[in-house]
Amino acid sequence: MRYSELLDGKSGYKDFLAACEHARSVSLLGAVDGLLQWDEQTMLPSDGGDFRAEQVAALAAITHAQRTEEKQGERLQKLKDSPLEKEGPGAVQATIRLLHSDFQKQSRVPGKLVQELARTSIKAQQAWVRAVKASEWKPMVTHLEKMFSLKRELAACQSPDLDPYDALLDDYEPGARWKAIDTTFSCLRKALAPLVRGCIESSGGPQETVLRGNFPLQSQQAFVCQVIEKIGFSFDRGRLDTTAHPFCSTLGPNDCRLTTRWDEKFLPTALYSVLHEAGHGLYEQGLPVDWFGLPPGEAASLGIHESQSRLWENLVGRSPEFWEWCHPIARKAFPESFDNVSPGMLAKAVRSVNPSFIRVEADEVTYNLHVMMRFDLEREIIHGNLLVADLPSAWNERFETDFGSRPSRIEDGVLQDIHWPAGLIGYFPTYTLGNIFSAQIMAAAQQSGVGIADQIRNGEFTPLLHWLRENVHSFGRTYTSEALVEKASGKPVSEQYLVDSLYQRYGPLHGLSPDMPKLL
Amino acid sequence: MRYSELLDGKSGYKDFLAACEHARSVSLLGAVDGLLQWDEQTMLPSDGGDFRAEQVAALAAITHAQRTEEKQGERLQKLKDSPLEKEGPGAVQATIRLLHSDFQKQSRVPGKLVQELARTSIKAQQAWVRAVKASEWKPMVTHLEKMFSLKRELAACQSPDLDPYDALLDDYEPGARWKAIDTTFSCLRKALAPLVRGCIESSGGPQETVLRGNFPLQSQQAFVCQVIEKIGFSFDRGRLDTTAHPFCSTLGPNDCRLTTRWDEKFLPTALYSVLHEAGHGLYEQGLPVDWFGLPPGEAASLGIHESQSRLWENLVGRSPEFWEWCHPIARKAFPESFDNVSPGMLAKAVRSVNPSFIRVEADEVTYNLHVMMRFDLEREIIHGNLLVADLPSAWNERFETDFGSRPSRIEDGVLQDIHWPAGLIGYFPTYTLGNIFSAQIMAAAQQSGVGIADQIRNGEFTPLLHWLRENVHSFGRTYTSEALVEKASGKPVSEQYLVDSLYQRYGPLHGLSPDMPKLL
Repeated sequence: MRYSELLDGKSGYKDFLAACEHARSVSLLGAVDGLLQWDEQTMLPSDGGDFRAEQVAALAAITHAQRTEEKQGERLQKLKDSPLEKEGPGAVQATIRLLHSDFQKQSRVPGKLVQELARTSIKAQQAWVRAVKASEWKPMVTHLEKMFSLKRELAACQSPDLDPYDALLDDYEPGARWKAIDTTFSCLRKALAPLVRGCIESSGGPQETVLRGNFPLQSQQAFVCQVIEKIGFSFDRGRLDTTAHPFCSTLGPNDCRLTTRWDEKFLPTALYSVLHEAGHGLYEQGLPVDWFGLPPGEAASLGIHESQSRLWENLVGRSPEFWEWCHPIARKAFPESFDNVSPGMLAKAVRSVNPSFIRVEADEVTYNLHVMMRFDLEREIIHGNLLVADLPSAWNERFETDFGSRPSRIEDGVLQDIHWPAGLIGYFPTYTLGNIFSAQIMAAAQQSGVGIADQIRNGEFTPLLHWLRENVHSFGRTYTSEALVEKASGKPVSEQYLVDSLYQRYGPLHGLSPDMPKLL
Repeated sequence: MRYSELLDGKSGYKDFLAACEHARSVSLLGAVDGLLQWDEQTMLPSDGGDFRAEQVAALAAITHAQRTEEKQGERLQKLKDSPLEKEGPGAVQATIRLLHSDFQKQSRVPGKLVQELARTSIKAQQAWVRAVKASEWKPMVTHLEKMFSLKRELAACQSPDLDPYDALLDDYEPGARWKAIDTTFSCLRKALAPLVRGCIESSGGPQETVLRGNFPLQSQQAFVCQVIEKIGFSFDRGRLDTTAHPFCSTLGPNDCRLTTRWDEKFLPTALYSVLHEAGHGLYEQGLPVDWFGLPPGEAASLGIHESQSRLWENLVGRSPEFWEWCHPIARKAFPESFDNVSPGMLAKAVRSVNPSFIRVEADEVTYNLHVMMRFDLEREIIHGNLLVADLPSAWNERFETDFGSRPSRIEDGVLQDIHWPAGLIGYFPTYTLGNIFSAQIMAAAQQSGVGIADQIRNGEFTPLLHWLRENVHSFGRTYTSEALVEKASGKPVSEQYLVDSLYQRYGPLHGLSPDMPKLL
């Protein structure tokens, strides 16, 4: 533990150590749960699901009981009133404050509910896999009704004074409130409308054609591993596997696991999902190892997490500089497909705009519309204004409003995401918050005088990563996401950075003036 | 639960259900530990070891506390004196008897010791991996001294009335005693001596040459999966991965995981280790699913487990009939290497006898000498007659006595097995017990009139598997290993079946008369 010299002998220091020790021992079990879930998605034999659901539920109950042990509550209460909480180093103060508030919140939730949520989540996810395969909505209704109802119950237990959607949101974006997000999203939506329309209607925009070809699995694996190792992901502390839906999961201070899917005919599927997940991974690998299991060693929020993944995926990975560096590597890996393709052609092709039914396949310009729609729909359900049974029609209507068409297959519509079956309600808005944060953070990094574009062109990613480590990663959860972005950029959080970034990077490419009116 | 109709309303039935429920919930956690360990060997990033050791230790403590809960002890005590234990169906009686004796034994072990053993085991295994790489014995001494000392402590706690080696042996081969094993092994050793000498000295024996060639990894993977699926291993309930040391691990009633290593120049490395592990897997997949987590759903012993793996590896997989069936499949998979090789050549080559420093690479004839040596050495340490520090010299001396040479590299000698660092002391003799059981069980199956050889020739493995399911697998742990073998074969356990089997299958092949004197 850091600070031992500084604090040894100070009043409350022993309680502080004991409270940290307790939180760390809980995090050991939390990471076991992480492994059970990672394994469920990557390795588990098809018939192993029921038993795994029971395991996850049993462990959730044990972890919850340990997490909410009375002794820890007493210790934290004492610390909350101790001089350490007022005069200790920042990380110590934040640790006490956050452990205390987490404890309060979690103690209000009955163990039975935690266990039931865990079991329902696994079972609903397994049902979802079957429903997608069968292209059927009906079998999901009961699972989702149960899940939304349990989450409402959770909201009422853990934060009885909050709006129920805010109570859920708080698990992913601490301190965020839906009304403020709604205002931000409305502004963003209006500001982006001309760009969306312009890009879609433009006939001279770039096409994906050059990204299609033959990309054998093994060559792709070697290629993406080389790329993410180069940007700084450590394979001594992580790995990459295959799943239907890409994710990043941290199973220990030195165990960060990424997953992706592959398409042997279309390189961006794997490349950009791996760059995205590696962005998450770089954040996780950049959190202070000494503080693992404690707030200073934890991610600030999902929004901040997403800011890191989107930064590497889009702001780095879709830049002309990136392709100047990556072009020879890609050409060597896929000589057959990239023989006559220039860096510029690749850099343009990866910024083509093609509205898609599927969120994870959406381009940067239309992506946020997908998120806003989910944010509105899930909130309506939690607020009791929409029934789960009516989700498909609500989904299709809203999709038509935003995109001018309706998905004909349910798996291209309301069934496409695992979030709701998994119980991740209040999670979606963090994707767009992440985009907003990423643009503001990247703008600050660029203005820091580090000369990022030139470095990327030369395959030097360390300075950017170092800047992110210093200004974002190293603080863990000691600041809220908004405070952290403000600290890193020196400016209050604003969606304007994202608007500017998208107009600059997509406008001229699609024949639009970069100066077209952006705010209505 | 079976028997519900039969037992409902009977005195003690509610306690029985509650006791089973408790044992099952413990088994959920036991299987989580299994996953942590499986993952440690197959997937864990190189820097993730320390944290994993802490996780395993924390979970071991929690599992032990839950396993030895007072309430369960009281329930089992009541059941022990209830009519159910005397008059219930066999599986119910066995469940009560075994849950009770397991509970007694485990309750005598302090949680701290369980945790310390778990932590030491993971740390020593990690040290072992490094020691093997560095070819150094020294760094292992402290780890092994600690492990042997902890195991002595464990023996004294869990079975204070037993000889300490027997107390450890009992964890792997319930009810077995080292003196009886020693007698059996001495007889076996004497009986096999002429065969060992004859095979080694014979110049006309088969050679492995035809098994060397090019066996590309992907073709091997497809080939071995096809073979074990054909003999009955279900991939809906299991999987196969890559590790340095092959093993089989059961992580749930429908989740049995095999591992192997691969050699692209020598087919038997993977083929026979996969057949071996699949033999374990067929046993696990054949245990009654309804009873998972309870004695009737558990393996009888490691000796019985090994009897199943050796049966499929050797008695099936090295038979001429097997190669008559497998030859066209192998030829199709490896046309380059097997173009001019007949079924008979392959069947002979896989029974060549070549004394090896390495146990897991040993042929069937010399294999048991490796086991006996380890059995003697580990017992000497537990009995205080040999120091860990003196193990290498004791090992080399004994090896020279048995094989006429000494390994020059420590990793080919005392460092070759993971068992001692892992704390698996008392485990080794079960390998030779398994060989003994396998020969007796196979002889019984052959005499059952099912016509096994002809069926194998036609690729029909179901009848043999069915016979094993019915006569071995379905009983779980309700009989001791000796009682089970006697029940399946109708004869008391004897090493003579193994002696006969080896003489018949190896004698003539090496120019020896099958009638040469076998017992001295």
